[in-house]
Amino acid sequence: MNAGGPSLRELRLEIEEFNSEYTAVLDALRIEDWPRFFTEDAIYRITGRENFDARLPVGLVYCEGMSMLRDRALAIAKTTMFAPRYLLHQVSNTRVLGKASSDEIRAIANYALFETLVDEKTTLQQVGRYHDHFVRVAGELRLKERLCVYDSLMIDTALVFPV
Amino acid sequence: MNAGGPSLRELRLEIEEFNSEYTAVLDALRIEDWPRFFTEDAIYRITGRENFDARLPVGLVYCEGMSMLRDRALAIAKTTMFAPRYLLHQVSNTRVLGKASSDEIRAIANYALFETLVDEKTTLQQVGRYHDHFVRVAGELRLKERLCVYDSLMIDTALVFPV
Amino acid sequence: MNAGGPSLRELRLEIEEFNSEYTAVLDALRIEDWPRFFTEDAIYRITGRENFDARLPVGLVYCEGMSMLRDRALAIAKTTMFAPRYLLHQVSNTRVLGKASSDEIRAIANYALFETLVDEKTTLQQVGRYHDHFVRVAGELRLKERLCVYDSLMIDTALVFPV
Repeated sequence: MNAGGPSLRELRLEIEEFNSEYTAVLDALRIEDWPRFFTEDAIYRITGRENFDARLPVGLVYCEGMSMLRDRALAIAKTTMFAPRYLLHQVSNTRVLGKASSDEIRAIANYALFETLVDEKTTLQQVGRYHDHFVRVAGELRLKERLCVYDSLMIDTALVFPV
Repeated sequence: MNAGGPSLRELRLEIEEFNSEYTAVLDALRIEDWPRFFTEDAIYRITGRENFDARLPVGLVYCEGMSMLRDRALAIAKTTMFAPRYLLHQVSNTRVLGKASSDEIRAIANYALFETLVDEKTTLQQVGRYHDHFVRVAGELRLKERLCVYDSLMIDTALVFPV
Repeated sequence: MNAGGPSLRELRLEIEEFNSEYTAVLDALRIEDWPRFFTEDAIYRITGRENFDARLPVGLVYCEGMSMLRDRALAIAKTTMFAPRYLLHQVSNTRVLGKASSDEIRAIANYALFETLVDEKTTLQQVGRYHDHFVRVAGELRLKERLCVYDSLMIDTALVFPV
């Protein structure tokens, strides 16, 4: 820890608040606001646990840099392939990994994503973990890297949407 | 924020503790203790996301004021229509909305409600969000308004029970 | 509270961090690291809500003392009956029960355990509550007793694995 910096607990609480804002944007389908949680050079990936454990780089979604994040957001906003649905994230078990400083933080959190399609029952779309690398930009946390590793098999069209 | 008042983070943590107590009462089916989380003039509503998004006031449950809350609790306690079951809430992603003061707080939290009927598998009864207006009574948080907005279609008899 | 000791809130946050580490070990199937969360004389039990409410001591798993915890961990590590799977815990609604001191804490938390078997959909394996008795050993929290009370009927082989 940096001398005089926030404690690991304070960083954990700050990340929880970050993730609550982040998932509220996704749950509201405000996809155009999603890139603002990232740094200019950020990497965003979604991959399965099997790939992750085997250290395979291949994943279902790969974005590198702000323009790719914005492109993806725009593509989703304009697509007609994304059926209306309600989303709800539950993020829990946030852990700040050791040797964090106030400006450079690695953390993991568990998420469950519940999805409700029109006139259907709510289902568990996926559970997984955020593997995050946060940095601080103008005092605020930003994701330099978010790797979403899901346990679940995902085969439906919702895949196009970030987690 | 009020000068010298608690921070948004402290309010968030206080609301989390409130919700843990609130849901513990419901999960224990101690329905008679449920009204004590509200103010005398409180409003309690349960409504679907579709209604909420369309700003329709109609919902599945509507209580205004302590006597209606107590009537509902009494009705449930005495009914034979409520089959035995186990309930378990998970509340997460609590967000204090901006411009909160220590005595007047608006907040949103995500909930999942798991239900287990006798000799059946546990199911996800509903997921949704608490849209809350808290005030402080004798130093303690009370709900002046709780609006439960569920994503899920709900058609079973459990509806009579508060969330 | 002990004069000068941590507040109930700080204890709650510390227990949340304990549980995030505890469940991360289980989710990684690092069963050999599981006993280190307990005291030498610890009791670990898993039982159904029905048994618990009836105050029946019988449960599905019973370990008393470090050697039984280690025996169980070893047995699981060596068994071929435990099919590969991914586990993910979500722990929420942590409540420190009144009259806690810094060194002797009783607490309850809600958990949901999601399980993904190879090439299958993620399912809710169980939901339940940790009924915990924590003590402090060399400054760190340890479980003197953890009683896992599940709402769900559980009949599959995963039972052998701790929660």
